[in-house]
Amino acid sequence: MSLAHGRTYLAIPGPSVVPDAVLRAMHRASPNIYEGELPDMMPDLMRDLKRVARTEGHAAIYISNGHGAWEASLANTVAAGEKILILATGFFALGWANIARARGIEVDILQFANGGTFDLARVVQTLEADNTHSYKAVLAVFVDTSSSNRNAFQPLRSILDDLDHPALLMADCIAGMACDRFEMDEWGVDVAVTGSQKGLMCPPGLGFVFFNDKAVEARQRLKHVSMYWDWTQRIAPEAFYQYFSGTAPTHHIYGLRAALDMIHAEGLDAIWDRHATLARAIWAACEHWGQDGPLKLNVPDPALRSHAVTALSIGNPLGTRLRRWCSHEAGVTLGIGLGMGSEDDPKSDGFFRFGHMGHVNAHMILGLLGAVEAGLGALDIPHRAGGVTEAAKVISGV
Amino acid sequence: MSLAHGRTYLAIPGPSVVPDAVLRAMHRASPNIYEGELPDMMPDLMRDLKRVARTEGHAAIYISNGHGAWEASLANTVAAGEKILILATGFFALGWANIARARGIEVDILQFANGGTFDLARVVQTLEADNTHSYKAVLAVFVDTSSSNRNAFQPLRSILDDLDHPALLMADCIAGMACDRFEMDEWGVDVAVTGSQKGLMCPPGLGFVFFNDKAVEARQRLKHVSMYWDWTQRIAPEAFYQYFSGTAPTHHIYGLRAALDMIHAEGLDAIWDRHATLARAIWAACEHWGQDGPLKLNVPDPALRSHAVTALSIGNPLGTRLRRWCSHEAGVTLGIGLGMGSEDDPKSDGFFRFGHMGHVNAHMILGLLGAVEAGLGALDIPHRAGGVTEAAKVISGV
Amino acid sequence: MSLAHGRTYLAIPGPSVVPDAVLRAMHRASPNIYEGELPDMMPDLMRDLKRVARTEGHAAIYISNGHGAWEASLANTVAAGEKILILATGFFALGWANIARARGIEVDILQFANGGTFDLARVVQTLEADNTHSYKAVLAVFVDTSSSNRNAFQPLRSILDDLDHPALLMADCIAGMACDRFEMDEWGVDVAVTGSQKGLMCPPGLGFVFFNDKAVEARQRLKHVSMYWDWTQRIAPEAFYQYFSGTAPTHHIYGLRAALDMIHAEGLDAIWDRHATLARAIWAACEHWGQDGPLKLNVPDPALRSHAVTALSIGNPLGTRLRRWCSHEAGVTLGIGLGMGSEDDPKSDGFFRFGHMGHVNAHMILGLLGAVEAGLGALDIPHRAGGVTEAAKVISGV
Amino acid sequence: MSLAHGRTYLAIPGPSVVPDAVLRAMHRASPNIYEGELPDMMPDLMRDLKRVARTEGHAAIYISNGHGAWEASLANTVAAGEKILILATGFFALGWANIARARGIEVDILQFANGGTFDLARVVQTLEADNTHSYKAVLAVFVDTSSSNRNAFQPLRSILDDLDHPALLMADCIAGMACDRFEMDEWGVDVAVTGSQKGLMCPPGLGFVFFNDKAVEARQRLKHVSMYWDWTQRIAPEAFYQYFSGTAPTHHIYGLRAALDMIHAEGLDAIWDRHATLARAIWAACEHWGQDGPLKLNVPDPALRSHAVTALSIGNPLGTRLRRWCSHEAGVTLGIGLGMGSEDDPKSDGFFRFGHMGHVNAHMILGLLGAVEAGLGALDIPHRAGGVTEAAKVISGV
Repeated sequence: MSLAHGRTYLAIPGPSVVPDAVLRAMHRASPNIYEGELPDMMPDLMRDLKRVARTEGHAAIYISNGHGAWEASLANTVAAGEKILILATGFFALGWANIARARGIEVDILQFANGGTFDLARVVQTLEADNTHSYKAVLAVFVDTSSSNRNAFQPLRSILDDLDHPALLMADCIAGMACDRFEMDEWGVDVAVTGSQKGLMCPPGLGFVFFNDKAVEARQRLKHVSMYWDWTQRIAPEAFYQYFSGTAPTHHIYGLRAALDMIHAEGLDAIWDRHATLARAIWAACEHWGQDGPLKLNVPDPALRSHAVTALSIGNPLGTRLRRWCSHEAGVTLGIGLGMGSEDDPKSDGFFRFGHMGHVNAHMILGLLGAVEAGLGALDIPHRAGGVTEAAKVISGV
Repeated sequence: MSLAHGRTYLAIPGPSVVPDAVLRAMHRASPNIYEGELPDMMPDLMRDLKRVARTEGHAAIYISNGHGAWEASLANTVAAGEKILILATGFFALGWANIARARGIEVDILQFANGGTFDLARVVQTLEADNTHSYKAVLAVFVDTSSSNRNAFQPLRSILDDLDHPALLMADCIAGMACDRFEMDEWGVDVAVTGSQKGLMCPPGLGFVFFNDKAVEARQRLKHVSMYWDWTQRIAPEAFYQYFSGTAPTHHIYGLRAALDMIHAEGLDAIWDRHATLARAIWAACEHWGQDGPLKLNVPDPALRSHAVTALSIGNPLGTRLRRWCSHEAGVTLGIGLGMGSEDDPKSDGFFRFGHMGHVNAHMILGLLGAVEAGLGALDIPHRAGGVTEAAKVISGV
Repeated sequence: MSLAHGRTYLAIPGPSVVPDAVLRAMHRASPNIYEGELPDMMPDLMRDLKRVARTEGHAAIYISNGHGAWEASLANTVAAGEKILILATGFFALGWANIARARGIEVDILQFANGGTFDLARVVQTLEADNTHSYKAVLAVFVDTSSSNRNAFQPLRSILDDLDHPALLMADCIAGMACDRFEMDEWGVDVAVTGSQKGLMCPPGLGFVFFNDKAVEARQRLKHVSMYWDWTQRIAPEAFYQYFSGTAPTHHIYGLRAALDMIHAEGLDAIWDRHATLARAIWAACEHWGQDGPLKLNVPDPALRSHAVTALSIGNPLGTRLRRWCSHEAGVTLGIGLGMGSEDDPKSDGFFRFGHMGHVNAHMILGLLGAVEAGLGALDIPHRAGGVTEAAKVISGV
Repeated sequence: MSLAHGRTYLAIPGPSVVPDAVLRAMHRASPNIYEGELPDMMPDLMRDLKRVARTEGHAAIYISNGHGAWEASLANTVAAGEKILILATGFFALGWANIARARGIEVDILQFANGGTFDLARVVQTLEADNTHSYKAVLAVFVDTSSSNRNAFQPLRSILDDLDHPALLMADCIAGMACDRFEMDEWGVDVAVTGSQKGLMCPPGLGFVFFNDKAVEARQRLKHVSMYWDWTQRIAPEAFYQYFSGTAPTHHIYGLRAALDMIHAEGLDAIWDRHATLARAIWAACEHWGQDGPLKLNVPDPALRSHAVTALSIGNPLGTRLRRWCSHEAGVTLGIGLGMGSEDDPKSDGFFRFGHMGHVNAHMILGLLGAVEAGLGALDIPHRAGGVTEAAKVISGV
């Protein structure tokens, strides 16, 4: 007998839960790509997409995943042989660095503590030292999906401005956009990338790059930009196919339209509040359990925690065992630990993550926490009982 | 801001949650009704349907809801002017009685306590007194969806046998089948009715009647049986349309096929165990909350509680307020109280129900209970905190 | 190798082709049945449904197929032992008669030629002879799905009025509604029945009965009306479930809503015109083929032909062979001949039908006719080549 | 009134008609990406995908459209500054050339007649002259979607072999794969690219590159290959995400699995035969119409015509008018003329195309041709009547 038979909840940090309305919108015959509904919906779609990033700049949609969006962001801004600075607080900053290196870009990395954030003094020092302005861009991850910390971009903008450093400020918002408050224009971010499969509630398959005129200028000085990533035509298309450099992602566009409708109907501020409250409920449960056992939130400082994903440690091999129990006995799938391994635990078996991004409500999160509490009990993992009740109190208090 | 935005859980006692596989199976072009896949699947479908009722007798599928199945069960067995005995422990027994009366059947009702079960002595007494065997059938509800009590049928069978009373024993299994253990043949039930929209996990639209040869004989002595309800042709069809007295419910058949596949893949015993465990988790939470507040399970004796639905009282108007909070703030919809009203509370605002039938797992139930605990807190309804943790302990213990 | 692999067209006279928008609307989680969107949509749904029948009278929705709607129409108007008159021009009039007889109603049948229509003189004579007004209702089929003839109701209304005969005039519109022009109120029809699966473009599962106040009065004089068929509560529901005598057909309601939206967006007049033109294209092809071969339209007089279905004869066993070829080699499924058999051809193998009801356009019909022309050729059935070109000319001429 | 209301057929050369089974497979909750069904299905998926290209070499799946697959094929084989030879018979060869140039590759183009094929003597001459083997690859389009001609690759292989020229032979099979016979290994093609949205019957969103060990060697000598396009890890993944360089296209994978199941159930040979026969039916109709009017097939030689797409000329502005009529009045959407414009007709208004790729059967094609014949009539475009009947004869003859 298993208690997992029912509608399962995939509580991993992406792909996230796709709303029925999005799936329904994608279940359709192939549409006319020459004229009519589909081409006609593009201007509003682009406008509503940019509203999610809080930018009045430009947006390009790529048929790709987040790695593709990473490529696109670099392909339009930095040439092979040029240099960038990456500020890393987790696994995904290093992933972006790898993408850059494979493009022949020189990468300097400032590594900060996983679970912490940038040491701004070191950032200042490094950029000050770069008096030739060799760094064409400063890259950082907004919410690192592996460590679940959230980094602030306003201080980076201030530093660049104070030093009059012309490097572009580029943000990976894949895990955080439409979950954690992100204000692209207000915060002075020049290029931001994200994907369809997290806060935007669609299946994987679309990458998004948002950018301002300063980034457009950077593109213009590049000699070769491969056509697929080149954003030039995508933001000034004369024909529908030019939005996508070829055949349009017909079904995903309908899905994205439905998702954007949901997002703007709820309102971004309400969405951010919802994610913040649900995250606080999760933290309350975890901190309670951890008082009498090994469970620990990866990011100690609540101000640095993402509202979209939560990384936890519990000791090898309990992370893997707990994930398995929740999946096989309770119908909820937790995320694996990623990039947290050590010599003792090369596969991160002592870590796991909750994804709580996008289409998530109190019922889903309380069920997730209830399942974890049941799993802790079933596996005899020491913990202070009552975490889920603490979470319910947070929800009550709203 | 609302925390309800996400995948909502309809925790009402039917229609229940429809599995994705069932919805997917129903999303199809109209099939050929003359030959091929659809007509060919009927023999196996009927066999697998009967396995759910644990009968080797007959089954008829009606395009109808449960009220239609009620009609069908009576149309084939009892003539206008004849008499039946109804054993009532809740609202739905009275509903079946009303259906009978509208058919011109004389109805005697033995009313037992809502939340209790039959007083067998009274049943014996009543049937003993019927020495002319005027009762053509004894009707009772297996799980009453309103009161959430579960009645045993073996004792009724024994009484009828002991008295050599020829009345048919008829069971309304609408809320219980494929949730609570029900053994039609073993328990000596002659006619059992159910619908597609609860334990069978399909959208509403099909009613099912199961019956044995003794019931077939009852049909044969009736003069007029309206064709739509007549089961004669439905159990010995020479053409596909005769299964359904006309056009087949094409899409529902595909859905039912998918649901039966899921049911038999999991196994009825495992399904019954799952429902039993989840029900115990719910009771643990409710009993805990009730220790310091007004919340009460409607059925005091655990042995008499259904594993598919749970009726609760909390005092007018708190039931309605709690339901509203859970729906608007947490994304879970509770069932309304039904047939529990009094002069003070004609609309049953002090009552509510949980549906936990069919496609439900530990995550969904723990989320439901977490949401209720949050709601109790948010609405300042007195309760002992920690109910959801008690439920998690039950789940742990499996 | 087969040329049937592709999107198949089910060109049978119901179930008809279900539009993607309807299937999409039905692919959803179970909705809240207590409050919100679903209950709220009922008043508009009922209004828009009645517009399809062109009535300002009443409408009741049954979870049933067309046979169920037949039952409902009789259950509310004629008691067992009472008498009705049926005017028959095909198989389905006899089906309705059978339903009546099984209800204990006395049935007189005026049989007219299959493929023709009523001999009004005989109708006058029969009703005149009924000077005791023993006939409680005169029943006729608007479009007989088997013979594909269409009968006019205005003359029947005139006859009844002229004779001052109080019998209800009842029309089976299952195959014709929303395809062939039908004006319930204007034509003086008292009761009309139809189903969801033909012109209304939904999967089978709903039966509809439309009726006026005179019919309501007929109901009131009946002693026993079984609750499931009783329309009294259905047209004056105090609660949502009363529309459906129990659990609502949740998913079908969403499908029906989508279908009604499509119908009223296109406009009933435009729909009737479309069906008329497509029917003329079919007739042109068939008459052309028939000039040098055995193919014949069942209804010789174009004025009597339905625009929704076309019955044809071709000689045993060519009907069955042609149907098989079209299905296996061309991807289009023709309807079987129904109720047209003779001693030589008990299974109607020499007959077949085209369904062209509901969601059908010029492409689908021209493809159907092209496939038939190819089949005639492949099977060496004599015919004058070029029928599909004649059909294209009809379409051109619009 | 319009006769277009019904299930529309998008008869454009891609995106093609998506089978219901594929759409159904894609309508699902986000799956677990760590373990279980989805990761487990990859080895069989890759095997079955390669069977479609008739190769025992390698395959990489990209989240992209065909332009992305073009990029990927070049990114792994040719460095910036290196040279390739493109053999062009239509618009899309020039598109691939543009992709190459934007990558900094030097491109020589041999331009052949649109509607014809390669002049092999010129190819020999050009490659012979390249005695330094400066051409790293010879690129050609198998079926050019714009001109609808089909080019043979065996002669190119022979030329390269005869000259001992080491250039890779690369084929764009986007429009032809799984429609026109293509034998990658037997024909000696080193790299072949295609997409999901034509013969593979899925929505746009996946690009495929097939390649052999010789191509793998070419990759190895390249210094920088951007990670997203690099096929190295994709063909030897240690983790599921490495198949896709990041997040997997979860829903498309399920769709592709369903499509491959359909393809291999029917059999590639049967599929190629089906396309060939349907193409011959189209040609028969068009040649017939053209005998008394302006309609002309773009490719005069039947041996050079694709079986997946057919380009036609009819004179400006009749192409556009005919397309519009078919779409608005008959429910079938024709493809626009592409890359066929002249000074007189810069927008190709005198051209149009039929897409007949993938999920197409005799009914759909005969309906398409019937609609065109009706449109020719409705618009008074001179033509010999009876084309659709000629097409039906071709279908008959099978």
